[in-house]
Amino acid sequence: MNEKNYCVILAGGLGTRLWPMSREKQPKQFIDVLGTGRTLIQDTYERFARIIPTENIIIVTNEKYRRLVREQIPDISENNVLVEPMRRNTVPAVIWAALEVIRRQPDGRLIVSPSDQNISNIEAFEADVLRGLDYVGDNEVLLTMGAKPSRAETSYGYIQMAHHIPGTHDIYKVQSFTEKPAAEFAKIFYESGEFLWNTGLFLWSAETFIRAVVNVSAEMKTIVGSVVSGYRNGENVSDLLLELFAKSPNMTLEQSVLEKSDNVDVKLCHFGWADLGTWQAVHDILPQSDMGNVVIDSKSLLYDCKDCIIKLPEGHVAVVQGLEDYVIVEDDNVLVICRKGDQKNIRKFVNDAQLNLGEEYV
Amino acid sequence: MNEKNYCVILAGGLGTRLWPMSREKQPKQFIDVLGTGRTLIQDTYERFARIIPTENIIIVTNEKYRRLVREQIPDISENNVLVEPMRRNTVPAVIWAALEVIRRQPDGRLIVSPSDQNISNIEAFEADVLRGLDYVGDNEVLLTMGAKPSRAETSYGYIQMAHHIPGTHDIYKVQSFTEKPAAEFAKIFYESGEFLWNTGLFLWSAETFIRAVVNVSAEMKTIVGSVVSGYRNGENVSDLLLELFAKSPNMTLEQSVLEKSDNVDVKLCHFGWADLGTWQAVHDILPQSDMGNVVIDSKSLLYDCKDCIIKLPEGHVAVVQGLEDYVIVEDDNVLVICRKGDQKNIRKFVNDAQLNLGEEYV
Repeated sequence: MNEKNYCVILAGGLGTRLWPMSREKQPKQFIDVLGTGRTLIQDTYERFARIIPTENIIIVTNEKYRRLVREQIPDISENNVLVEPMRRNTVPAVIWAALEVIRRQPDGRLIVSPSDQNISNIEAFEADVLRGLDYVGDNEVLLTMGAKPSRAETSYGYIQMAHHIPGTHDIYKVQSFTEKPAAEFAKIFYESGEFLWNTGLFLWSAETFIRAVVNVSAEMKTIVGSVVSGYRNGENVSDLLLELFAKSPNMTLEQSVLEKSDNVDVKLCHFGWADLGTWQAVHDILPQSDMGNVVIDSKSLLYDCKDCIIKLPEGHVAVVQGLEDYVIVEDDNVLVICRKGDQKNIRKFVNDAQLNLGEEYV
Repeated sequence: MNEKNYCVILAGGLGTRLWPMSREKQPKQFIDVLGTGRTLIQDTYERFARIIPTENIIIVTNEKYRRLVREQIPDISENNVLVEPMRRNTVPAVIWAALEVIRRQPDGRLIVSPSDQNISNIEAFEADVLRGLDYVGDNEVLLTMGAKPSRAETSYGYIQMAHHIPGTHDIYKVQSFTEKPAAEFAKIFYESGEFLWNTGLFLWSAETFIRAVVNVSAEMKTIVGSVVSGYRNGENVSDLLLELFAKSPNMTLEQSVLEKSDNVDVKLCHFGWADLGTWQAVHDILPQSDMGNVVIDSKSLLYDCKDCIIKLPEGHVAVVQGLEDYVIVEDDNVLVICRKGDQKNIRKFVNDAQLNLGEEYV
């Protein structure tokens, strides 16, 4: 394995849209969402451990989940678990991880990965990741990974491709990024053939990324400079990191860095990618009955039901009649029965539950 | 209190239509269905204990529920709990209870009552019961109690009134009994003004009832005769009772005795009666939200829901979207989500669960 290759797994999120299974005290990445016997972060870690030296796999998480990370990934060394000083968007976490990589390996390159994805073709994934890491090792480029859309999905972000980069294996210049689009735009994107799903997998050399960050923000330039010299002088940088997080804009990586840089490419990938962000997504990747129903982990009797997803505590039984396109999920003290298609539902429910019922339900 | 008055509470049923709350190991009569802090049988017992000497209140139940009866009605003496030798329709249970009353008080009169009813006007109920007991003490009549229908209910039986009995307080000769009718008949019954809901409350002197039983069946005549003489001679009658149960036709009291007798009257009652046989019935008697939803014992967040009934284990929360006229009930290891209006549903679900999933879910 190439010792210059690093992996940064982002595992600090709340996974709200998979409530009530995903809870504040144990978000989805720490749950066996698919009923495979392994949690999502375990799957993610193992996927990378096949191609990247385990001492180079770094997990960024929240203080609340430090224990869960250690329990679920017992092999990981304490030094490779970066605990965010506060909950922020992913930008400061990715900056910190890149600085950490530079500290260990000045010409290291890394892949940034969410901890809640499903990859169906592992061999294709490994090949694409390794090719991508080689590419960003050789070129001063911020490389994203795009999956060919199979439907006009509205819960994913999109990347528009510009021209093919000569001499590369399916790598294109990026024309634009789009956040989750409205249905009519999703349809246009899907049909145009120019747009790829944004997998949220990013590859770059740590140095290229840090250069991009300091180029787009004078404030970040100052803070990053301080952290780098703090590292160099062997100082305790925790106050500086706190400042890095506190001052980071509450924007996505795409908005704050990639859209403002001109060296961003996208690699067209074919490894069967799905983001397990919503119940719809979980439904879509699991085996379905003739009627399109998915039942995870529990027994059930379904009458006149179609395209539903059902997950109850183990040993429980669901008897359901006459529902189509519904989510039926129970976990601990919360039962949710709601329409599956409406993406914004669950966030609203969680907010209402927190406000009206109490923290113990969130 | 009149020491000739007896009460027989029937508490051996399974309450299948309130599954999964009502379970084989603890049927609905032993459950606080309405969230009042008292079980249905406790309510029933206390209602009668106000007007009938407690030493004259007899409970007939199944061996499986003997312990539940003693736990929930700790005041009752062991002699007043009759344990059916086998599960049968109510006929042999009522015969046995009548014979037991005769043994104690040859001219005793009694009211037979289910253990799962809701009575909203207790004073009216007490007055009607006492007047009825007086009436059957003075007249050799089998008296039923009928409630004025408030809707074209299809889950209740109906009693058709014939002429008024002169000199009585709202007592009529019975024209006919009808089991749960189809919707079109229920509508005609309701609109005609001639039909009352059959409350399942029956009053008679024990002797009048036994005479009716032996009149309609030669086989019953023989068995009943044997039990009576067994009692008279102080013998152990348990084998005879077993025979009584085994040979009783699997029919209702109405079919096997009342419809075949010509001395059957009905008293029109106004005490706010409801049979808690179905989730629809439970829904109808409990306080409803503006949208017609009823939530028992649990917290909930309902979005775009109408006329639903929800009951979860205590401390649990239901978040439900977009359901109308649904039952959402969870108990122990079973969650049922089904249409509320369809009466035959739940029996089918229970059968399927027993067959396909196992006894532990029934």
